Amino acid sequence: MNRTERLEALRAAIARAGVEGFIVPRADEFLGEYVPAGGERLAWLTGFTGSAGLAIVLPERAVVFTDGRYVTQVAQQTDPALWERRHLIDQPPAEWLKEHAAGRRVGYDPWLHPQAMVDRLAASGAVLVPLAENPLDAVWTDRPPPPAAQAEPWPEAFAGRSAAEKRAAIAEELRKDGQAAAVLADAHSVAWLLNMRGGDLDHTPLALGFAILRDDASVQVFMDPAKAGPELRTALGNAVAFEPRSGLTAALGGLAGKRVRVDTEATPAWFGLTLRNAGAEVVAGTDPVRLPRATKTPAERDGARAAHKRDARALARFLAWFAEAAPMGGRTEVSVAERLLGFRREEERFRAESFPAIAGAGEDGAIIHYRATAETDRAVRPNEAFLIDSGGQYLDGTTDVTRTLWTGPGEPPAELRDRYTRVLRGMLALAATRFPEGVAGPHLDAIARRPLWEAGLDYDHGTGHGVGAFLSVHEGPAAFSRAAANIPLREGMILSDEPGFYLPGSYGIRIENLLLVARDEAAPGPKRWLRFETLTLAPFERRLIAVEGLTPAERAQIDDYHARVLAEVAPMLDATTAAWLRAACAPLVA
Amino acid sequence: MNRTERLEALRAAIARAGVEGFIVPRADEFLGEYVPAGGERLAWLTGFTGSAGLAIVLPERAVVFTDGRYVTQVAQQTDPALWERRHLIDQPPAEWLKEHAAGRRVGYDPWLHPQAMVDRLAASGAVLVPLAENPLDAVWTDRPPPPAAQAEPWPEAFAGRSAAEKRAAIAEELRKDGQAAAVLADAHSVAWLLNMRGGDLDHTPLALGFAILRDDASVQVFMDPAKAGPELRTALGNAVAFEPRSGLTAALGGLAGKRVRVDTEATPAWFGLTLRNAGAEVVAGTDPVRLPRATKTPAERDGARAAHKRDARALARFLAWFAEAAPMGGRTEVSVAERLLGFRREEERFRAESFPAIAGAGEDGAIIHYRATAETDRAVRPNEAFLIDSGGQYLDGTTDVTRTLWTGPGEPPAELRDRYTRVLRGMLALAATRFPEGVAGPHLDAIARRPLWEAGLDYDHGTGHGVGAFLSVHEGPAAFSRAAANIPLREGMILSDEPGFYLPGSYGIRIENLLLVARDEAAPGPKRWLRFETLTLAPFERRLIAVEGLTPAERAQIDDYHARVLAEVAPMLDATTAAWLRAACAPLVA
Repeated sequence: MNRTERLEALRAAIARAGVEGFIVPRADEFLGEYVPAGGERLAWLTGFTGSAGLAIVLPERAVVFTDGRYVTQVAQQTDPALWERRHLIDQPPAEWLKEHAAGRRVGYDPWLHPQAMVDRLAASGAVLVPLAENPLDAVWTDRPPPPAAQAEPWPEAFAGRSAAEKRAAIAEELRKDGQAAAVLADAHSVAWLLNMRGGDLDHTPLALGFAILRDDASVQVFMDPAKAGPELRTALGNAVAFEPRSGLTAALGGLAGKRVRVDTEATPAWFGLTLRNAGAEVVAGTDPVRLPRATKTPAERDGARAAHKRDARALARFLAWFAEAAPMGGRTEVSVAERLLGFRREEERFRAESFPAIAGAGEDGAIIHYRATAETDRAVRPNEAFLIDSGGQYLDGTTDVTRTLWTGPGEPPAELRDRYTRVLRGMLALAATRFPEGVAGPHLDAIARRPLWEAGLDYDHGTGHGVGAFLSVHEGPAAFSRAAANIPLREGMILSDEPGFYLPGSYGIRIENLLLVARDEAAPGPKRWLRFETLTLAPFERRLIAVEGLTPAERAQIDDYHARVLAEVAPMLDATTAAWLRAACAPLVA
Repeated sequence: MNRTERLEALRAAIARAGVEGFIVPRADEFLGEYVPAGGERLAWLTGFTGSAGLAIVLPERAVVFTDGRYVTQVAQQTDPALWERRHLIDQPPAEWLKEHAAGRRVGYDPWLHPQAMVDRLAASGAVLVPLAENPLDAVWTDRPPPPAAQAEPWPEAFAGRSAAEKRAAIAEELRKDGQAAAVLADAHSVAWLLNMRGGDLDHTPLALGFAILRDDASVQVFMDPAKAGPELRTALGNAVAFEPRSGLTAALGGLAGKRVRVDTEATPAWFGLTLRNAGAEVVAGTDPVRLPRATKTPAERDGARAAHKRDARALARFLAWFAEAAPMGGRTEVSVAERLLGFRREEERFRAESFPAIAGAGEDGAIIHYRATAETDRAVRPNEAFLIDSGGQYLDGTTDVTRTLWTGPGEPPAELRDRYTRVLRGMLALAATRFPEGVAGPHLDAIARRPLWEAGLDYDHGTGHGVGAFLSVHEGPAAFSRAAANIPLREGMILSDEPGFYLPGSYGIRIENLLLVARDEAAPGPKRWLRFETLTLAPFERRLIAVEGLTPAERAQIDDYHARVLAEVAPMLDATTAAWLRAACAPLVA
C-alpha cells in the first residue's frame, strides 16, 4: 500500500469502528522515546519518522503535529495532499479538534495515551472514545511482531542493590501512602526495580513489560513468560511472577476495592479505565521508582566512571583519527559516525549506541536533532564545523557526549570561535557550580546560558537531561531545563550539561559532558552542599577556543580538565594516539 | 493580661467554642503582609512581632511557627514555658497537627486563612472547623478598632491607565473565561483596579476593602462607605458602588447559579464557603489583577524613576552624614534610621516609609528581618558593619534599598570584605543579566548566589521580590526566588535584587537595588529580549570592596554605576554633599 492507500484503508476501518475520527500518536503501549518497529504507527501512516508527533484522521481531513525540532523534516517526509502540518506546541491538537471535531466522536487507543493527555484532548469538546481494537493495527497487515529478546538479570555488582531490597523499599513507600499496589507502566521502572535488562529496543537495554508492585513487595511482570529464562527467575525468586499480557485484566480486577497508585502522566489510559471498571480506587501519583532510579547507587556511580573511562579511550582514538583524516577527503557524516562506533565496539562491555548518533557537518549541525541517513548524508568538507553527539550503552553505564570539531586546515572564522567559546564557558560554568541541597535543575539552567545571553544569543532546547545506569540515555525526573519539575538535585544523579548554539544554514555548536551530582565535603557550615563530578573525558576543540575571551579562572578550569583527561586516558592509549592527546590537552596559549 | 493570662483566656474561649484547638495566623482578613493594629493577633497572643508566622493552641500544648528569617527573633520574643517553636517550612504545621491533633476538632477563623491553607492543614488528619466568631477576638477586649482613613483617587497621570479602562480589560478576561464575576479579596488589587489609595496601613497606601468585579465591568467595593469621599466617587463614576461590609453576604448570595472566580491561595476561605452555601460555582483561578498590576505602565515606570531620583538625594545626604558622623559616637540604630527618614521627609511627594526600616549594627545585622525597637536598640560602634534596609512611599513610586556600611575608622577585616564583595558581585551579576522572554524569577535566583556558593556560603531568603507602584513594597507574582511561581518576567515589572550574607553573632551584609524589567532593543535576532534597568541610585561602601576579587568586567560595572549615580544625583545636592558623593563614586583603585 502507498500512503494514500494506507490513509484510505484507515478511514474505512475508523468508520467500521463506529467513530468519526482516530488519533495516532508516535507511541507504543510503553509510551517511551524509543519504540520497536511494530510501534512505528505514525511513520507507517504518514511517512514522518521523528521521535515525537501525533496525527488525527477525520473523514474529510487529516493532520500531523510535530514540535519545533521537526518542522523541516515533517514537511519533507509527508504528502501535503494528504496531511496538514501543525506545530505541536504552538497549535496544540486540542485546538484543531475544537475547530474541526467539536461534538464528534473521535476514537483513540487507550494503550497509546496517558489519561492526562486524553483529558487535555477531551477539553476540546470532541467526544473521545476509547477503542478496544486499534483500527490502524487492523489495516497494517505486515506490522512487525513485538520483539522477543531474552530478559536477563543485571548483576547486583553493577546495580549495587538487590531487587529484593528495592522491592521492599518501594513497597514501604506504598504502605506509608496507604496504597495496596502501584502500576509500573514504564518498562524502565520495571527494569530498575528488578535489576533486569533486555534487548527489545536498539538503544535502551529493555525487556518491554508492565508490572504491578504490591505493598507486600511482591511483583507480577506482564510480558511473554518465554522471555524470562531460568537465570533471571532464579535471581528474582518466588516473590516475582512472570505472566502473559493477557493476564493483566484479571490481575487488575483482583485489586477491586483497593487503592492503586497510577502515574496518570505516564501510564496508558487503559490501566485507569480497567481499574475503575473493576472497582479499584485509582490514586494519581508519580511512578514510585522514578526518583530512586535517578539516584544512582555507589556501585552505579563506579560503573558510570568505569564506562566513561572506556568510552574516553574510544573517543580519544576517534578524535585522533578525525584530526589525522581532516580535511576529510572522501569522508561523509555517516562514515565518520560509524568510525566512532567502530572504536566503541572494541571496548569491553559495550553493547550498543545509547541513541542514533547525530553527526552534522556545517549547516547540518544547526538541525538540533539531525540524524544523518543514506538520503541526507553528505561529504564532510574542509574548513567547517562538525558536530558529533553520540553515546554508548555499556554493561556498567550509559554515556552521552558531544564535541564540535573544526575540520581545517584553515583557521576558523572569528564568529565561530566566539560562539564556541561562549558555549564552552556556559558548559564549564554549570559544571563548576557548587550549590546547597534544595536547588533543582530549572534553577541552574541559566548559568549555562549566560555567556550566550550576554551576546543576545540562546539555544532552543534544555541544557541537560538525566541519564540512566545501563538504561535510557534520557531519564527523568531531573533536568537542567526551565520546563522540568522543581525536583531538588540529589547526590548520585547523573545529568548531561550540553549548551549549544545554532546558526541555521551555517553551523551548529554543542558541547556536552555528563555530570554526576556529588556531596561537596569541602563546603563549611551545617548545610549539605553538592557539586558536580565530570564523568566525560575528552578534550575540547582547541582551535575553536578564543583564549582571549576567557577569564583566568575559566582558562585554569579548561587546563585542569585537559590535564585530568590526559592523566586518566593516555595510559590506555597506543603511543601515537597518546601523543596526539598530549598535544590536544596541552595548556592553552593566548 | 500578661502572655500567660492571654493564652489561658484563649484556651477557655476555645473550649467555649466547642473545639479542642485553634489556629492563629499572623493575618487579618486582607491576608496581606502588613496589618493594622487590630489585626496583630499573633503578636498579642505570643509576643512575636515578625511579619510571618502561625500559632496553634491545644489544651495541653501550644506552638508558634516562623520561617528562617525569624528563628532568632521568635526565640527572643516568646516564652519557652508557653510556646514550642518550630520552623514554618522545615517542620510544617500540618506535621505538627498530624502528631498532636489527628482526629481532634481544631477551630479556625475562615476570614484569616485562604482555602488552600485550610486544605493543607486538613491533610494532617485534624478536623478543621470554621468558627463564626474568633475566640481570640472575644478575649482581646482592648483590640484596636479598624482604621478609618479616607480613600482617595490616585491621579491617572501617575497610573497611566484609567480605572474604567482597567475594569473593562479585566471584565473582558472574565467573559473570555466564562465567569460572571471575580472576588477581589486583595486590597492591593482593589486599589490598582480603581486607581484608589488610602491610609489604613502605616507602610502601604491602602484603603482596606473587598470588591466584586462583574463581567459587565461594574464593581461593588465593600468597606465603610464614609471612607469614600465625593472626589473619589466622582472619579470612579456610577459603575463603581461603595457598600458596607455587612452587604457582602447578600451580594455573594446574588451570584447563585453563576461561575465566580476566586483565588483560593489568597482569598479568605469565608468567601468560598459563603458562595457555595449560596449555590454559586466557585472557579479556582488566580486574582485577575495580579499580573496586570505587576506590569507597570509607562507612566508608572517614569514615576518609579522620578521617585528613585528623589530617594537618591535623601540617600546621598544620609550616607554623607553617616560617613561624617562615623565612628558614630552616641548614635544608635534607631537614631540612624530616623536620620534617614528625616532626609526622606524633606523630599517632595514622600508619604511614608514603605516598611519599617531595618537598621542593624554588627551582630544585629545578622538578624535578617531585624527591626530596632526601643528594647533592642543599641549604640553603633566604631569598626563594625552597619546594615540599613529601608524605603519610601512616594506618590509616584515605591522605593526599597539596602546598603551595608563600615563605621570605621579602622580598616575592615579581610573576611568581611571578601563576603561583602561576593554579595556585591552576585547583586551586579543579576542586574547585568540579559535574557530572552520566557525566563522567570526562579531561573535567575542562582545567578546572584553563585559568588557566595563558590565559597560554600549562601543566604536563607529569596534574592528579590516584586515592588508595587505606590503600593506594597512586596508585590507578587514575580520574584527572584526558587519558591516563586514560574511566571515569565515581563517588561515593566519592578523587582528587588538583594543577596546577602549573615554570620550570626557577628555581622550581616545585604546590598539591594531595585530593577525595572526593560525591553532589550540591542539584542539581535527574532526573539524578544529583556534586560534590567537599575532604578536605585546610591554608592556602595567602597571600603568593603575587595577590588582584587573583581574581574575587569565587574570593576567596570561598578565604576559605570557610580558614574551614573554621580551624574544623576550630584546636581541635586549642596556642594558639601556633592563633594562627598564625588569621592564615594570615584573609580575603584586596586
